[in-house]
Amino acid sequence: MENYEVVRLHVNFKTLEEFENFREYGQQELSMKEDLEGNIIENDSESPFYGVYFGNKLVGRMSLYKIDKKFDEYFDPKQDYYELWKLEVLPAYQGKGIGKNLVDFAKSLGLPVKTNARQRSDAFWEKMGFEPLSYVEERDRGENPYVWFPEGVSEQHSAK
Amino acid sequence: MENYEVVRLHVNFKTLEEFENFREYGQQELSMKEDLEGNIIENDSESPFYGVYFGNKLVGRMSLYKIDKKFDEYFDPKQDYYELWKLEVLPAYQGKGIGKNLVDFAKSLGLPVKTNARQRSDAFWEKMGFEPLSYVEERDRGENPYVWFPEGVSEQHSAK
Repeated sequence: MENYEVVRLHVNFKTLEEFENFREYGQQELSMKEDLEGNIIENDSESPFYGVYFGNKLVGRMSLYKIDKKFDEYFDPKQDYYELWKLEVLPAYQGKGIGKNLVDFAKSLGLPVKTNARQRSDAFWEKMGFEPLSYVEERDRGENPYVWFPEGVSEQHSAK
Repeated sequence: MENYEVVRLHVNFKTLEEFENFREYGQQELSMKEDLEGNIIENDSESPFYGVYFGNKLVGRMSLYKIDKKFDEYFDPKQDYYELWKLEVLPAYQGKGIGKNLVDFAKSLGLPVKTNARQRSDAFWEKMGFEPLSYVEERDRGENPYVWFPEGVSEQHSAK
């Protein structure tokens, strides 16, 4: 497997056009587009998205959002963590380890990572070193929470 | 379009076996199974799931979870609402209006309904009378929130 460079994506019209190739496209992307068109944000503003390019083409991406420790319901000790969502590699580029490169990047930031494993992707997340958490209805509301624990971090006990 | 009866699903081994046919299967279903096997819940306990049967076969389902008004970040006036997730109709049974019957059931309960529209299902939700909300990063974290407003209810202003 090669190592693909993971870069932070900037919000500009090119990036927004690339985003249209991904299945998980919705209010978040539309909101960025409106902010850019309305000059609410600058061209090339930093986005919460990270991606991998093949030449000029964005072929994989994920969004990472830092959650403040005071909202942490997953980790012990309570701490800042990253929520990872919209991890997606375009079909023609799957199987090259691009998803793994993106996840490794998230893990390299030094904080725990939490995601919602969708549509039977459990095997992928386990291969990435993530673990399922006990399901707590009030907290998880139908999510399928998987987390990556750095050394010395464990599941919050209050959670079930 | 016919009208299909929507029933509340009970947690028992038959239901849990039926759940395995759905794509969105994860910690929530596994947790129910463990609770049943460990006698933590009774056979035929009420679940947060509602479904439609064709004869003996569960062909559509959704989960509805009532959120207390004190956690309401979507509606004005602040009120109890339902969060709808895991709406899914088995492929061979799509196009018969079963999804609509499930959503109509949720709307009939007299409270606003919020969902996360996934994978470009926006057109479906709009046909169901739902509307997209302004995207608020801190609240929505990559979700694609769509809501149904009953008469007299509107979007919370604090939200962007």
